[in-house]
Amino acid sequence: MRKVKVAIIGGGTVGGGVYQALANNGELIAARCGYSIEVNHVVVRDAGKKRSVNPPREIVSTDWEMAISDPETDIVVELVGGVDEAYRIVRRSLEMQKPVITANKALLSLRGASLMKLARKFRTHLYFEASVAGGIPIIKVLRESLVANRISRVYAIANGTCNYILTKMAREGRAFDEILSEAQALGYAEAEPSLDIDGLDAMHKTGIMASLLSGYWVPERSIYVKGIRDITPIDLEFAEWLGYTIKLIGSIKLNENRGDWRNPEIELSVEPMLVPKTHVLASVDGVFNAVFVKGDVVGEALFYGRGAGQDATASSVISDIVDAACDLHQEYERTLAPFEAYAESAAILSHEHSIANYFIRLEAINRPGTMARVTEILARHQIGISSCIQPENHDGETVPLMLMVDRAPYHVFKKAIRELGQLRVVRSKPVYFRVESFAD
Amino acid sequence: MRKVKVAIIGGGTVGGGVYQALANNGELIAARCGYSIEVNHVVVRDAGKKRSVNPPREIVSTDWEMAISDPETDIVVELVGGVDEAYRIVRRSLEMQKPVITANKALLSLRGASLMKLARKFRTHLYFEASVAGGIPIIKVLRESLVANRISRVYAIANGTCNYILTKMAREGRAFDEILSEAQALGYAEAEPSLDIDGLDAMHKTGIMASLLSGYWVPERSIYVKGIRDITPIDLEFAEWLGYTIKLIGSIKLNENRGDWRNPEIELSVEPMLVPKTHVLASVDGVFNAVFVKGDVVGEALFYGRGAGQDATASSVISDIVDAACDLHQEYERTLAPFEAYAESAAILSHEHSIANYFIRLEAINRPGTMARVTEILARHQIGISSCIQPENHDGETVPLMLMVDRAPYHVFKKAIRELGQLRVVRSKPVYFRVESFAD
Repeated sequence: MRKVKVAIIGGGTVGGGVYQALANNGELIAARCGYSIEVNHVVVRDAGKKRSVNPPREIVSTDWEMAISDPETDIVVELVGGVDEAYRIVRRSLEMQKPVITANKALLSLRGASLMKLARKFRTHLYFEASVAGGIPIIKVLRESLVANRISRVYAIANGTCNYILTKMAREGRAFDEILSEAQALGYAEAEPSLDIDGLDAMHKTGIMASLLSGYWVPERSIYVKGIRDITPIDLEFAEWLGYTIKLIGSIKLNENRGDWRNPEIELSVEPMLVPKTHVLASVDGVFNAVFVKGDVVGEALFYGRGAGQDATASSVISDIVDAACDLHQEYERTLAPFEAYAESAAILSHEHSIANYFIRLEAINRPGTMARVTEILARHQIGISSCIQPENHDGETVPLMLMVDRAPYHVFKKAIRELGQLRVVRSKPVYFRVESFAD
Repeated sequence: MRKVKVAIIGGGTVGGGVYQALANNGELIAARCGYSIEVNHVVVRDAGKKRSVNPPREIVSTDWEMAISDPETDIVVELVGGVDEAYRIVRRSLEMQKPVITANKALLSLRGASLMKLARKFRTHLYFEASVAGGIPIIKVLRESLVANRISRVYAIANGTCNYILTKMAREGRAFDEILSEAQALGYAEAEPSLDIDGLDAMHKTGIMASLLSGYWVPERSIYVKGIRDITPIDLEFAEWLGYTIKLIGSIKLNENRGDWRNPEIELSVEPMLVPKTHVLASVDGVFNAVFVKGDVVGEALFYGRGAGQDATASSVISDIVDAACDLHQEYERTLAPFEAYAESAAILSHEHSIANYFIRLEAINRPGTMARVTEILARHQIGISSCIQPENHDGETVPLMLMVDRAPYHVFKKAIRELGQLRVVRSKPVYFRVESFAD
């Protein structure tokens, strides 16, 4: 039996999960892959802290530099989180020609391009299965299983916290703030929830997937992001009534310029979308994640599972450890790099030019002429209305007025929305969400 | 750029799809994996036949022996279908130490164990991603992505024809025979439909997945199989009313004896099951396939896509070609075998001892005392009733009587069913389906 020694940098939830799964299933993993995986270092911030998983004291330390430099260490697993220290750990390891496994989507999103170059320079690899959608093996699926495909579309529910909140709001008709507080109490949302609910976490993951699809590392600043704070129970109720549900979706469209995959055009965003209830993504509920993929050979496919948590993430980290072990003693040129930068350039389409259907909700004064003013503005911007609802029996001063509009470029749509917001009959900031038919 | 030459044996739908996808996307695939894949032979039965895909005449022949023996051929793709000739092709290739890719589930189901041994003897590999669930990369997911897991449960919708028929029956309330004829006319079902609708195709695929889960090649004769011919619109209607839908499910339960993965106990069947509408498998409709997996580390996951067809299958075949190309020039001991026989033995649980909940439908005479007789038989066999429906307003001589019963071993349940069928008040053969809660 061949052996590999692994240094785990980071003693938090995921680090503990990896250690525990290797302790429980190490022999079975070895029987399957031919490598006995031994953890020779667990590096933590505070060696005295109580943990749910307790590796033997002699392998626990607080010095990552020492753990990486140990000549016995074959593979480094970076699970410290954050960007700066994680970057130093990954860079130092790659410079020592040691393969690195990371679950750090923020790091990859910000520094992925340069780290991938560094790995190539030092003839080793940076593996990142656990960085997107936790236990769902979407990275291996995209780069190995679907290698034959030009993948033109990816729609991902990539943040479990948002999906949990939206599922609860839709089922129980309760307000965002209330469900968020509950989710925080249950540990499904962080005390500082912005990274999740403002869409930044989903943005990191969407960018990583877009990079794999295009062969070009997509800079995170090019991604349009809108979180879920604006969604109210009434939006979910009327979406439901119209045959939709609302999900936070990371959307990637890859358009080849005249079939040239070396210079693709990429359109991507993270935003709440109305998803038809008949679509398979609509049934992805609670903390689960899912990635829907369209390829020119495979057709439509969906990959579903737990997007976060100690164990799901550990499953993906260990799958990377096994890949790294197999690659370790092979000729470098014959191993598959987790990211291959094969595109020469990529044009990231400005969101201003992105064309979509939209759902609009206005709080309008219940008086004759209101609808005329609203529809006049949309008509002036050449935006067609496909349906319109104003519920009966509202006895307040204002009534909700909901419209579904067709195929508008965002820069035009935004102007119309601003004008709608300035109408005297409209009493609060207009709310709008993209409507995705998945048809093209 | 390194080159590999591939002989495609079989010029049917899938063979054509593989050729076409390599022609369309070959450069992109090469940029991703570093191998330029060249098809140097396409072996067909009738070289004169018109095809939708037309490789250059000089690589088309009718002599597979020659194509395999060509010293330039690096990799053999077997897509002839059937068992006997396919077996000769695969065996001959392995004996020449050439890696083989197959989509042939019938062959693997019947001869998988000996072919895997042969591959090992000649230090090469037999790849089979396309043999299960078409474009869904379930083989790579199970053996690589989920390598860290003890996978205890798999539930698969693995036959698109059956799923298409059941979806149409449920939606339109029409009879099995009618939908089958329609499916045959549309090309979704074969003229001789038995392989699909009697569950044999799903059995092949379920056996292959069970083998991967257990590390023991499961003999197909050990799998209990029941097809979908007995299902009527009224079953689907009442299943719906009770909160279920009916799907043909390949079910695998892996129970370790005291944690010993070297000697697992496997319980497996292919049969129509009532699936709760809230379960993610219930929303898998039409010709789509899906595989639901429970692992001790990853938790629950689902993989969904097209289960058949030229292109979806080609996507999986090409993923295997790339794996084979990467493995080709590596030290044999350092490559991952697509199947690793790590279990020493496996006890396949006899279906007689399999415990399940059931749905029963009887055509009973509408007269006082009928229900008493039915319930008395179930009580005598210690089978608990969890619910019972006899719809109102049936004015025929007989009425449908539906029961949901709890946790019965099949050998006991079968006796009760026989006795129910012998009751004078019961006018046709009792129909029953397993009810799966996915709870354990």
